[in-house]
Amino acid sequence: VSEAAAESLRVPAILERKRDGHSLTRAEIDFLIAGYTTGDVPDYQMAAFAMAVNFSGMSDEETTDLTRAMLHSGSILDLSDLPGPKADKHSTGGVGDKTSLILAPLAAACGVTVPMISGRALAHSGGTLDKLESIPGFRVGLGLDEFRSTLRAHKLCFIGQTVEIAPADKKLYALRDVTATVPVLPLIVASIMGKKLAEGIDALILDVKTGDGAFMQREEDAVTLATRMVAIGKGMGKRVAAVITDMNEPTGRGIGNSLEVEEAISTLRGQGPKDLTDLSVELAAWMLVLTAVQPSLEAARTKIRGAIATGAGLELFRRVIEAQGGDPRVCDDVSRLPHASGRHEIRAESTGFLHRVGCRAAGEASMILGAGRNTVADKVDPSVGIELGRKVGDAVETGDLLATLHYNDRSRLDAALARLKGAFDITAAPVPARALVRRVIE
Amino acid sequence: VSEAAAESLRVPAILERKRDGHSLTRAEIDFLIAGYTTGDVPDYQMAAFAMAVNFSGMSDEETTDLTRAMLHSGSILDLSDLPGPKADKHSTGGVGDKTSLILAPLAAACGVTVPMISGRALAHSGGTLDKLESIPGFRVGLGLDEFRSTLRAHKLCFIGQTVEIAPADKKLYALRDVTATVPVLPLIVASIMGKKLAEGIDALILDVKTGDGAFMQREEDAVTLATRMVAIGKGMGKRVAAVITDMNEPTGRGIGNSLEVEEAISTLRGQGPKDLTDLSVELAAWMLVLTAVQPSLEAARTKIRGAIATGAGLELFRRVIEAQGGDPRVCDDVSRLPHASGRHEIRAESTGFLHRVGCRAAGEASMILGAGRNTVADKVDPSVGIELGRKVGDAVETGDLLATLHYNDRSRLDAALARLKGAFDITAAPVPARALVRRVIE
Repeated sequence: VSEAAAESLRVPAILERKRDGHSLTRAEIDFLIAGYTTGDVPDYQMAAFAMAVNFSGMSDEETTDLTRAMLHSGSILDLSDLPGPKADKHSTGGVGDKTSLILAPLAAACGVTVPMISGRALAHSGGTLDKLESIPGFRVGLGLDEFRSTLRAHKLCFIGQTVEIAPADKKLYALRDVTATVPVLPLIVASIMGKKLAEGIDALILDVKTGDGAFMQREEDAVTLATRMVAIGKGMGKRVAAVITDMNEPTGRGIGNSLEVEEAISTLRGQGPKDLTDLSVELAAWMLVLTAVQPSLEAARTKIRGAIATGAGLELFRRVIEAQGGDPRVCDDVSRLPHASGRHEIRAESTGFLHRVGCRAAGEASMILGAGRNTVADKVDPSVGIELGRKVGDAVETGDLLATLHYNDRSRLDAALARLKGAFDITAAPVPARALVRRVIE
Repeated sequence: VSEAAAESLRVPAILERKRDGHSLTRAEIDFLIAGYTTGDVPDYQMAAFAMAVNFSGMSDEETTDLTRAMLHSGSILDLSDLPGPKADKHSTGGVGDKTSLILAPLAAACGVTVPMISGRALAHSGGTLDKLESIPGFRVGLGLDEFRSTLRAHKLCFIGQTVEIAPADKKLYALRDVTATVPVLPLIVASIMGKKLAEGIDALILDVKTGDGAFMQREEDAVTLATRMVAIGKGMGKRVAAVITDMNEPTGRGIGNSLEVEEAISTLRGQGPKDLTDLSVELAAWMLVLTAVQPSLEAARTKIRGAIATGAGLELFRRVIEAQGGDPRVCDDVSRLPHASGRHEIRAESTGFLHRVGCRAAGEASMILGAGRNTVADKVDPSVGIELGRKVGDAVETGDLLATLHYNDRSRLDAALARLKGAFDITAAPVPARALVRRVIE
């Protein structure tokens, strides 16, 4: 290391360079993230860094270096001893999005190993781990050994981010939340990809949502994010693609943990809502194509729909539930899932077509009922949520059921209803159908 | 407080608004600074704030609010029981700038009470407290009671920033140093003015330096800073003016603590270098004018030069040294000041006119010799420094003495000499004189 290089490896000098719009070297980024991981770089310097990146941005190369540094801040799973290709899906978060519970068993049933490391509910969007935990007995906190043996036995296992995986990301994620640096694109990219690339996968399909209920409300931002993530994944030798999908309406009908598990099961049985089924099939098909298990998207879709029709997907889900300590009988009898004590119906006040369901409002109302958390310490109520009676585009008559709120606490119901005020628009004119998949980034 | 206002008083929301370029309300700024003072707002949120301000800036109104919040984070001295007007000077920092030691006794000798709260050496620039401490026995760490009684007896007292004065500034100043947020204009303004306005003064003259040895290298930045500070001081009912002065050459001939005290004493005796004498007289004259002790700058200059000629300034300095525990005999016999054991001379290698003395280089070389500190924990060597043999514009012959380095440590001497390489330019053509005071901002 030259004297000039050693000089630049002081954190204030690195911050100064990013503040002044310069590109950081890989050595500088490694130094910063390694120091942050050990605690040598304090939170206040990392907060200044995150805010500087908000304004100065990062080049593709810097973002790749940051992702790599996040990835290498912890262990990278080596699943090379497991036979066959491994793939995962990541979604940027939405409302009623239970596709993970459907596509993972379907892809596994079609020959792909799915080591799925998921998150919890955040803000108005749900979390796969919380949904799975509504299945009585289901354990997501497995150690890496059990994760590996479950994957070997069933080609699928669901766990949360362990302490070994990308610890720098864990710290930075919490810091961003309290320093107004959540919507900083290079930091989002590095956070998602740093975690996912640590999973030991060969391929990754990204579901980047856009619209009212998504984190990226504008489609161009979603495209930028997707493009960056795909480029970085490819740069690290993975097969990665992204679909930009519409999140202006909740996905399917159920919002809330046990309601979403119930809907996932009925979708695996072939009785799911069209939008949820189509999106799950599409994402699972991409996993088959990216891993070259199927030669084309067309062939892969057919294969996945076959795994619904034969019940192979549901059967695999049942076995994984059992392997992870859950009650597999929920797959045949959803009344074994927790249910809320109260029901409140929202009915249409006019006749016409359902033009809009406020997606963020629905997500927030579900959280208010208890399906999510305001702080990481909050406990989630698995049984509450919202069930939509109509989907956007449906014909509606006065008095028709628009939504059923499942609640346990009357005061929370009142607050949720207040949040839903104006969330349902009914118009006289029919509503043109909206494409679910807006774009594909390969 | 309305619900909307209460909502906005969450730190992440305040950071978000500044990040997105909005102006903060007075309530938001007060909430942030009050929380930072108590420790409720952690360093990492303040670091994100400082970096956001670097990019988004602050309006005049916000800067005033920030200054007021800093000021009110601690005690504001009430000196109204002391008779007569009170004034102070603040300099943005330079090399060889010992004007405080000269103008303070001169202004006091001419009827202005000078409650001078000073700082220590920082980066390449010296600090008044360190210089005074080179006088054997001199104590700068007086309590507020002793400060007040010394002021009453002698119209002058020198102390450091106490824990009572602007504690939020103390914390933020240290944080900015390690988060690359030192050169952020609104933060500089609030830091300087928040401290100075806590001194209980009626008037303040600001010496805003520009050039190679100054913090603001570009004159337009110095003017912007000066304009902001003057406006804020006036907005708080003080009489404030700023002079923009040249810092492309060290002020006077001495750089280093005891060397500067020695030069201040000879200047008070009427034997100082022209640039140092002129600048000290000018700033002291402004203190007399701003406090209306003298009707015009012309009359004030005459009065101040009179205090040099009669020895009244030196006499007052002697009494204050004694009052603060120092050895007053240094005023008659500078050999009582600490002296370094080694001398090294730099001599001219050509004949012509001295065109340039690298000002920042000279400041840094003096610090390398031991006159300053790299961290707050470092101990300053009072005896080391640099004495210039020629000033810019002087005719020089080969072999003439350009500078004498006073050192105690041979290896530090070598490093200082390396830093001074190329710091002296000699040209064939005479050098046009440069105005010391570039502009006045009132």
